[in-house]
Amino acid sequence: MSMSGGRERLVVIGGDAAGMSAASQARRLRGPDELEIVAFERGHFSSYSACGIPYWVGGDVAERDQLIARSPAEHRARDIDLRMRTEVTEIDVAGKRVRARAVDSGAESWTSYDKLVIGTGAHPIRPDMPGADAPGVHGVQTLDDGQALLDTLARTGGRRAVVVGAGYIGVEMAEALINRGYEVTVVNRGSEPMSTLDPDMGRLVHKAMEGLGITMVNDTEVTEVRTGADGRVRAVATEDAEYPADVVILGIGVRPETRLAEAAGLPLGARGGLLTDLAMRVRGHEDIWAGGDCVEVLNLVSGQEQYVPLGTHANKHGQVIGTNVGGGYATFPGVVGTAVSKVCDLEIARTGLREKDALRVGLRFEAVTIESTSRAGYYPGASTMTVKMLAERRTGRLLGVQIVGREGAGKRVDIAAVALTANMTVEQMTALDLGYAPPFSPVWDPVLVAARKAATKVREGH
Amino acid sequence: MSMSGGRERLVVIGGDAAGMSAASQARRLRGPDELEIVAFERGHFSSYSACGIPYWVGGDVAERDQLIARSPAEHRARDIDLRMRTEVTEIDVAGKRVRARAVDSGAESWTSYDKLVIGTGAHPIRPDMPGADAPGVHGVQTLDDGQALLDTLARTGGRRAVVVGAGYIGVEMAEALINRGYEVTVVNRGSEPMSTLDPDMGRLVHKAMEGLGITMVNDTEVTEVRTGADGRVRAVATEDAEYPADVVILGIGVRPETRLAEAAGLPLGARGGLLTDLAMRVRGHEDIWAGGDCVEVLNLVSGQEQYVPLGTHANKHGQVIGTNVGGGYATFPGVVGTAVSKVCDLEIARTGLREKDALRVGLRFEAVTIESTSRAGYYPGASTMTVKMLAERRTGRLLGVQIVGREGAGKRVDIAAVALTANMTVEQMTALDLGYAPPFSPVWDPVLVAARKAATKVREGH
Repeated sequence: MSMSGGRERLVVIGGDAAGMSAASQARRLRGPDELEIVAFERGHFSSYSACGIPYWVGGDVAERDQLIARSPAEHRARDIDLRMRTEVTEIDVAGKRVRARAVDSGAESWTSYDKLVIGTGAHPIRPDMPGADAPGVHGVQTLDDGQALLDTLARTGGRRAVVVGAGYIGVEMAEALINRGYEVTVVNRGSEPMSTLDPDMGRLVHKAMEGLGITMVNDTEVTEVRTGADGRVRAVATEDAEYPADVVILGIGVRPETRLAEAAGLPLGARGGLLTDLAMRVRGHEDIWAGGDCVEVLNLVSGQEQYVPLGTHANKHGQVIGTNVGGGYATFPGVVGTAVSKVCDLEIARTGLREKDALRVGLRFEAVTIESTSRAGYYPGASTMTVKMLAERRTGRLLGVQIVGREGAGKRVDIAAVALTANMTVEQMTALDLGYAPPFSPVWDPVLVAARKAATKVREGH
Repeated sequence: MSMSGGRERLVVIGGDAAGMSAASQARRLRGPDELEIVAFERGHFSSYSACGIPYWVGGDVAERDQLIARSPAEHRARDIDLRMRTEVTEIDVAGKRVRARAVDSGAESWTSYDKLVIGTGAHPIRPDMPGADAPGVHGVQTLDDGQALLDTLARTGGRRAVVVGAGYIGVEMAEALINRGYEVTVVNRGSEPMSTLDPDMGRLVHKAMEGLGITMVNDTEVTEVRTGADGRVRAVATEDAEYPADVVILGIGVRPETRLAEAAGLPLGARGGLLTDLAMRVRGHEDIWAGGDCVEVLNLVSGQEQYVPLGTHANKHGQVIGTNVGGGYATFPGVVGTAVSKVCDLEIARTGLREKDALRVGLRFEAVTIESTSRAGYYPGASTMTVKMLAERRTGRLLGVQIVGREGAGKRVDIAAVALTANMTVEQMTALDLGYAPPFSPVWDPVLVAARKAATKVREGH
């Protein structure tokens, strides 16, 4: 396949989901005699589940290594030259080479490539405030972060934790710390937790988290992390209050890690992520691919790029990239914005557009909210769930669904995710043949109840 | 709306899901001054969940009345003249009237209609063999049946139960009787239980039921119910064996209850169900509608009529009929054949076509089977599930999915149900944006793993 008649070299930057999925899939399609694969990872770990870190911290997952899907040795056994603790510091696009530095020794060298895959992931947003780097303040982005946090928890006798931010990581870390017996306060800039939901649905999360004994402080910006005489964190300060803290978790989200790409002149979108085509090729660059938390993706509902750092997308990107790099053909058509999470027994899910997303892209909609149950009302364990549904005015096209409930609520969002992908109207959805039996659903599934109400509102609408 | 200037009369035959949903929806759209509604029900109960009977018998549902969604008095309070214990014995299509007989007094009278809804439901298949009507032999079709069975269980001290048939009712009743402490034997004519699955998937159910301590006897026809000196059941006999039984449950399925319709000359399909158009109007009859367990429905995957007696369809039919009768417009486009069930913690689901269904309608397919887990492998409670997927050759169109697993397996079939409705290919399904978080799914949802394997097989296929 190589122009020179010899074997090609694929270079991968980043040894986690996107990069190593791409490398593995390329290796499946092309053997080592055809394709050399060199991968660089600056950290200690490869191919791990960052999404699992809160459950490891919370004690549901006993061992760090359970989160590792494939170790460096396993990758090497498949003829992938994975160089750990080696950071790529420059991409020379014109020269088709990357410069890498061994983190421990500082030694630098250039490696040329025929094809390049960028899977540099994301970096956590660190607030620019006094004390943000004090001992006892932790991010939870990497396995190294998780280990550092667990070390802190083991070493210090404190019982009060403050979580800054109330998105997925924030609420999952609140659960983890509750499970470890901490008094947990969540300080959140937004009016309600889970800003990926509309505020009316976020309010249900707010109430449920308070019911779990978590102190929720909304509409509040953290201004400072205050330290004690020992230099360690002792409190989190806001404009008008102070919350004592033995440990602080920063869960205020991540940004695409695209400094390398930017310096190399590769195209970035409005949210700082790399822009690719449908084959995950960096726009305008025949031999460079990118995937995972460092790219923006097309939202199929809004028609616009969006930044959605999620392991499930990273794995799909890697699969698509590896197939294309390996000589096959695959595309990643986009996302509909599905996400699911939980706090203790509260399940939270969303897909498609929120009200403000729809308005921003010029869509008018009808919004309905219903309450129903996870099982037939008479069946043991039936619990209430709230489903909010948005449908476009006039056309009735489904635009989004949000669900907050208990067992059986979260994954129901998949029904809407498929319907969004298929451009279904809420009227069409009312006839969906969903699985029914008393232990699994009321005779009208909650999603159907919402669709019926939305369809009625569209018909009666302006 | 009436031709004569007065109010119209809607007559409904059958006071359960389809009939009373239709009546209720018609009433919502047209008040009593416009539309008189008379409904006839030969039994003691209206609008109840027959699907809930196994859970009532098994003790998960404490009270019979929990299964009743709306009592006769509640219907009457909404100006529906529901006449209980009154059986319609004749439909005079030309004269637009029905003859009804009070079950207790035997008194008969004619009632004329402007519009007629037939919701006569199904009757259980009673095997034509000696002893089938002996005391201790029970169907579980109606609340009256369920009460009679519970009376038998309370009155007799036995501990051995034989269930005849291993479809949904059979396996649910096996669970119910295990839960009540019985030794349960299931005698089944097919090679594996759950003939709505392909035999390779039915075999997983077979093994799991044995693991629950249920004795499974497959490939075996019951020839006789043997009675003791007291005239009560004492054993079930097959050609070459005898299974002692203190109670026998007949769970060998139901047939459409269409004797009235047949006598009236209304059109029936190959499976004995009434044939309707998409508005649920009986074909060729402007003023007669039918829905629920007495009709055949269009299978959207096979393109042919099918008999699928399920409460969830009956409710949708009723809603559609009531809307049309009430002057609105609605259709029931068809089913894709979704069903879900459980035996203790085993979840069983299917949608679309089995291998033999596909072959029968001329479809060639690729079939794949995969094993995956309900949650991330490292997350507590992750359990194995098996997903079988059929995709049409060349086009790759999804044809069917079967799932056998534990918690979280059953309702995953909804993903495939929506994809079938949308005519998706398995290749398209590989990109579905399904909810992912470690407590809910592996990073590749089991349905996506199956879709990937199926898509590969279609690409490599002939």
